[in-house]
Amino acid sequence: MANQKPVLHTSFSPALLNLYSVSNATVVIIDVLRATSTIATALYNGAKCVIPVDSVAKCIELGKQIDGITAGEREGKIAEGLKHGNSPFEYSKEFVGGKTLVLTTTNGTKLLHMALDKSAAQIITGSFPNLSAVCDYLMSQNNPVILGCAAWKDVINIEDILFAGAVINKVKNHFAINCDSSQIAETMYLNAKKDLYDFIKEKNASHYNRLMNYGLEKDIRYCLTEDVANVLPFYEDGKLTVRRK
Amino acid sequence: MANQKPVLHTSFSPALLNLYSVSNATVVIIDVLRATSTIATALYNGAKCVIPVDSVAKCIELGKQIDGITAGEREGKIAEGLKHGNSPFEYSKEFVGGKTLVLTTTNGTKLLHMALDKSAAQIITGSFPNLSAVCDYLMSQNNPVILGCAAWKDVINIEDILFAGAVINKVKNHFAINCDSSQIAETMYLNAKKDLYDFIKEKNASHYNRLMNYGLEKDIRYCLTEDVANVLPFYEDGKLTVRRK
Repeated sequence: MANQKPVLHTSFSPALLNLYSVSNATVVIIDVLRATSTIATALYNGAKCVIPVDSVAKCIELGKQIDGITAGEREGKIAEGLKHGNSPFEYSKEFVGGKTLVLTTTNGTKLLHMALDKSAAQIITGSFPNLSAVCDYLMSQNNPVILGCAAWKDVINIEDILFAGAVINKVKNHFAINCDSSQIAETMYLNAKKDLYDFIKEKNASHYNRLMNYGLEKDIRYCLTEDVANVLPFYEDGKLTVRRK
Repeated sequence: MANQKPVLHTSFSPALLNLYSVSNATVVIIDVLRATSTIATALYNGAKCVIPVDSVAKCIELGKQIDGITAGEREGKIAEGLKHGNSPFEYSKEFVGGKTLVLTTTNGTKLLHMALDKSAAQIITGSFPNLSAVCDYLMSQNNPVILGCAAWKDVINIEDILFAGAVINKVKNHFAINCDSSQIAETMYLNAKKDLYDFIKEKNASHYNRLMNYGLEKDIRYCLTEDVANVLPFYEDGKLTVRRK
C-alpha cells in the first residue's frame, strides 16, 4: 500500500463539492476569469498577502482596519466603496509590492470557505498564470487532491474546467483518477490547448462574452497564459501568501 | 421577437437542476446506462407503459396492485422482491408487449420527480437508442429545453453528457445556446462519436467499469447504439408512454 497513488477528483461547481472527500485533501480553488489569476499576479508582484472576503462591506471594513488595498468588482465596475478592480493588470510590482490586498470575489471566496468548513488539509489557488507552481506542488505532496472549479453562482464554466484539465494533463501519472469529471476536464483541455483564447471564443463561453462586453480582451488573454506569475498562493490563517519550497 | 429561438441548457447533475428555469421547459431525462435506454426499448417493444418509481418497496407494491412486471437492480443484481433487472435485453416484444413495466431506478427517477416538482412543461426520456425521436420532437416544438443528466448520486458521468452532446449536435440550429455545459457536452460528443464504446472505455468511465465488472459489455454497447428503439417516451399522469406525432 505504500506505493498507492493518492486520488484526484475534479468538482465542476461549488454545488458538487460535498460529493468529494474534502477533509484530508489539498483543495485547489480555480477561478480563472479572473480572481485566482489576479491573486497569483498580486503575490508574484510582491504583495505581502491577499485576503479574500465574500462581500464588499467586509472588504471595506477590513481594508480600513489593516490599511490594505481594497478591490473588487460588481458587474464589471469597481464596487462602490472599494478602490480597485479585479484586473491582474492593476497589480504591478510598483503598486502592490509589500502591500496587503483585500479582494472580494463572489465565487472563489465562497468555494474557499466551503473547503475551509469541510476541513480541507490544505487550500491553494490555481490559474494558468501559476499552472506549473500548482502542478509541482501537487506532485511534491503525497496527498489526495480536489480541483475545485469556482464556477459562476454554481453554473459550470468552460475556463475553470480547462485549467483543471491542464493540471490533470501534467500530474496524472502521480494520482489515481477514477473520476469522469476529471476525464472530461482533460479532454476539454486537449481540445483547447493549441489556442485557449480561440477555443473559449469559438465555444461562446459565457465569461468570455461577459468580459468582452466590458472591453477586457487583454485580461482574458493574460488569464489564459501559462506561468507568467508562477507562484503558489497558499491559504493559512485567513490569508493567501506565497508558499516557498 | 416571433422568430426568437427558445433556449437550451444542459444540467450535468440533479444537484445543478435548480440553476435552470424548469417551469416552462421540456425536460429530457438522460440515464444512458441503463434506465432510459431500457425505457425506450421496453416501449419500442410494445410495453403499454413504464412506471418509474424510486424505491424497491414502491415497485413491489405497485407491481402487485396493477399486475405489472417489477424490475430493478441494486449493485448489479435484481433487487430482492423484484422479478427482473435493468437490462434492455430482458424486454423483448414477446415478454413486454402489452404489459406495464414498473421500473425502479435511483438516479433517473429522482431527476424526473425533481422536474415534476418544478412544474416542467413536458418530461421525456432520452438515450442513444431513441436519439432521433428525441431530437425530432425537440425541433418540432418551439419550447425551451433542459437536457437533464441523471448522473450517479449527483456525481457527473461521461455517458449522459455524451448523449446531451449528441442531441445538441443535431438540434443546435433550432435553439439559442448560451450555456457552457452544453458546449462541453457537444465537444465531448464530437471527440467520442467515431466510436462511443471505445471512447468511454479509453476514458475509464466509472459506469463502464461498474457494468463491465458485472459482465455487461453487451448492454453497454447496445446503450450506445443510436436509434435501435426509436420511440419517444412521454411522461404524463405518473407513467411513460409512447408519444405519437
